[in-house]
Amino acid sequence: MAEALAQNFSAVAWVQVDGQPVVRLLDQRALPTKTLYLDCVQPDQVADAIRTLSVRGAPAIGIAAAYGVAQSMVIAAQSPMHAESYEVLFDEVCKRFAATRPTAVNLFWAIDRMRRRNHAQRSLAVDLRARGLVAEAQQIHAQDIEMCLAIGKHGAALMPDEGGVITHCNTGSLATGGHGTALGVIRTALAIGKKLHVWIDETRPLLQGARLTAWECAQDGIEATLITDNMAAHVLKLGKVKAAITGADRVAANGDSANKIGTYGLAILCKYHNIPFYIAAPTSTVDLHCPHGDAIVIEQRDAREVTSFGDVQWAPNDFAVFNPAFDVVPAALIAGIVTEMGVARPPFADDLARFVANAQPKIS
Amino acid sequence: MAEALAQNFSAVAWVQVDGQPVVRLLDQRALPTKTLYLDCVQPDQVADAIRTLSVRGAPAIGIAAAYGVAQSMVIAAQSPMHAESYEVLFDEVCKRFAATRPTAVNLFWAIDRMRRRNHAQRSLAVDLRARGLVAEAQQIHAQDIEMCLAIGKHGAALMPDEGGVITHCNTGSLATGGHGTALGVIRTALAIGKKLHVWIDETRPLLQGARLTAWECAQDGIEATLITDNMAAHVLKLGKVKAAITGADRVAANGDSANKIGTYGLAILCKYHNIPFYIAAPTSTVDLHCPHGDAIVIEQRDAREVTSFGDVQWAPNDFAVFNPAFDVVPAALIAGIVTEMGVARPPFADDLARFVANAQPKIS
Repeated sequence: MAEALAQNFSAVAWVQVDGQPVVRLLDQRALPTKTLYLDCVQPDQVADAIRTLSVRGAPAIGIAAAYGVAQSMVIAAQSPMHAESYEVLFDEVCKRFAATRPTAVNLFWAIDRMRRRNHAQRSLAVDLRARGLVAEAQQIHAQDIEMCLAIGKHGAALMPDEGGVITHCNTGSLATGGHGTALGVIRTALAIGKKLHVWIDETRPLLQGARLTAWECAQDGIEATLITDNMAAHVLKLGKVKAAITGADRVAANGDSANKIGTYGLAILCKYHNIPFYIAAPTSTVDLHCPHGDAIVIEQRDAREVTSFGDVQWAPNDFAVFNPAFDVVPAALIAGIVTEMGVARPPFADDLARFVANAQPKIS
Repeated sequence: MAEALAQNFSAVAWVQVDGQPVVRLLDQRALPTKTLYLDCVQPDQVADAIRTLSVRGAPAIGIAAAYGVAQSMVIAAQSPMHAESYEVLFDEVCKRFAATRPTAVNLFWAIDRMRRRNHAQRSLAVDLRARGLVAEAQQIHAQDIEMCLAIGKHGAALMPDEGGVITHCNTGSLATGGHGTALGVIRTALAIGKKLHVWIDETRPLLQGARLTAWECAQDGIEATLITDNMAAHVLKLGKVKAAITGADRVAANGDSANKIGTYGLAILCKYHNIPFYIAAPTSTVDLHCPHGDAIVIEQRDAREVTSFGDVQWAPNDFAVFNPAFDVVPAALIAGIVTEMGVARPPFADDLARFVANAQPKIS
C-alpha cells in the first residue's frame, strides 16, 4: 500500500517559498501534454483555480479550499489585527471559497472543519489561530489520503479477480489527497494481485478520463483502454467489463449519488447488462442533510465546453447548448457505496448514517 | 414538402466541368466552419472521400459510390475499348468501391444496382453502357430523395405534436440524397405543424451531431439544443424528450439495427425512461441476408479519432484505444423502423421482408 502511494504525485501541496505560504497545484487543465505547477501566493488564485478546474475532484477541491482559507489567515495575521477583524475576514474568506463550486459537498465539509477549528481556538492570539488553521488543512489532507487507502481496501474486495472494470471521469491521485477513490480501489485491487483491465470513459466535455485518468494509468503502468463515453454500452455488451466504479461529488442520505455528467447513463447501462455499479467516496461526501438526489444542486457550466475543446471549435457559432456538470445516479442503480468506514449496501440510509456518525473527525 | 426540399444543399452532385464528368461532394470534414466542395475528377478521389468521411451517411455513401462507378466507366469509354476489357474494369471498379466502408449496406445495394444495370445493357456499345450507368446513378440519387420524403411522411405521424425529440449522429440532407432519414422525419413533422425541439447528441468521436446536424438545424432554423452524448440520460430524466429517432447503416432481417456508435446506449436509456426509440432508414438499408445483429461487421477506426480532434490531442501519446464506428440496437429496444414503404413494427421480420419485396426497384 505504502509503495502504491509513494508513486503518486500530489495534486495539492502546502509549501513555503521565500518564507511565504504557497498553495501549489498541479494544473490539471494542462495535463497530459504539459506538467505545470501553479504556485498560488494569494488565496484568490486558489479560488480561481478551483473555479476554472485547474484543481478538481471533490476531495481535492476540499483540500485546496482548506489550504486557501489557511493561507488567507496566515497572510492576514502577518500584520497586527484585532480579533474582531480577524473573525470578519475569516467569515468572508470561508464564504468566498464556498462559492467556487456548488455541487461538491466536500468543499463545504472542509470549510466547516476550518470553521470549527477556528471556533475551538478562538481564545488564542491571531497568529496562533492562523497556524492552527494550517495544521487543520494539513490534517484534512493527510486524513484524505488515509481515507482513500481505506476505501481502496474495502473496495478491492468487490473487484473481480480478473477482468475489465469501467470508470468515468477522474477519481485518482489528481482528484484527492492521493491514491484516489474509485481509481484508488482499482490501484489497491492491482496491488493485492487482482488482474484488472481498466476501461476509461473519456468523459466529455472536459475529458477528465482521456486527459487525467489515462495519464495516471500511464504513469503507474496500469493496463487500460480509452473509449468515448458513447462506446460504453457496446463494450458492456461485448462482455469486456465485470464491474463499474466511479466517484461521487455528493451522496444523499438515501444513497442517491451526484457525480460527473454521464455517470447516471453508465449506471443504467450497467443495470441493463447485469453488471454491478459501485460508488467510491469518503464519508465527507455523504450529505445527511440532503434526503435524496432531487435536492442536489446541479452546476450548469459554459456553453463553450460543449461546442469546442481548447482552440478547436466544432459546433456552429452561438448554437444553443445544455451543459450540466453533474447528474444523479438513483440509489436503486447502485450495488454498493464504498467509504473509508466500509461498504454501504442497499438500502443505504442506515449504513450511511452509521458510517458518518462514526467517522466524524474530532476537532483536534 | 417541395419547399422544405428546395432549401437543401446537396451532399453529392453529378456535374460536368469542362466537358468532363465530376462528382462534386460537400466536404463534411470541413463543416461547419468552412463550406468547401470537393470536385472529384477521378474515381479514386471519390473512393478516398468515402473512406475519409468527406462524404458519409449510409444513403449518401451509396449515391457517391454509384456516381464513382459511373464516372470510372465514362472516363474509360472515352478511349476505344473491347467489351471484355470494359467488363473486367467494371468489376474491378465495383470491388474497389465496395471496399471503402464495411458496415453501410446501402453501399453494396447501390453497387449491386449498378451491376444489374450493367448486365441488363450488356448488348450495347461501351459508351452507351457508360451513359446508362450515369442514368442509373442519377436515378439512385433521385429515388433516395423520394424515399426520404416518404420516410418523412410515415415517420412524422410518430412524432409528438409538441415536445423534445433526441437524435444521434447526422441523418439529414448531408447523409442522404436530400431531406434526410431521421432528420427528414423531424423536417416533415415541423413542416406539417408539429412543434418539436431537437436534442442533438454531439456524437463522438467524429462529432457529426455537433458539426453536421447542428449546422443543418441552424441552416433551416430548426429549434435545437446540443449536448454531449453522456448528457442524454440526464436530459431524458428531466422529461425533456418524448421520442428518439436515429438512422441506421444496416438493418438485419429481424430488425436489429447497426448505426453510429452510441445509438445502442441511447436506445437502452430510452427503454429505461419509457421513451419510444425509432429507426428511420430506406429499405435499401435492410439486409435480409443478415439474420440478426451479431452477423453485422463493425468497422474499427483509427485511434487518433478518440485521442484527439483536429490538431488538438488530449490523451497521452500512444494510449490504447478501442474505436468501433458502429454498434447494434437489438430489435427489442426499437418501437418502429420507418421506411419509405411504411413503419415496420415489432416483431419486424414480416414487415421488413414485405417492404423490401415491394420496394425492390425495377432495372430501368
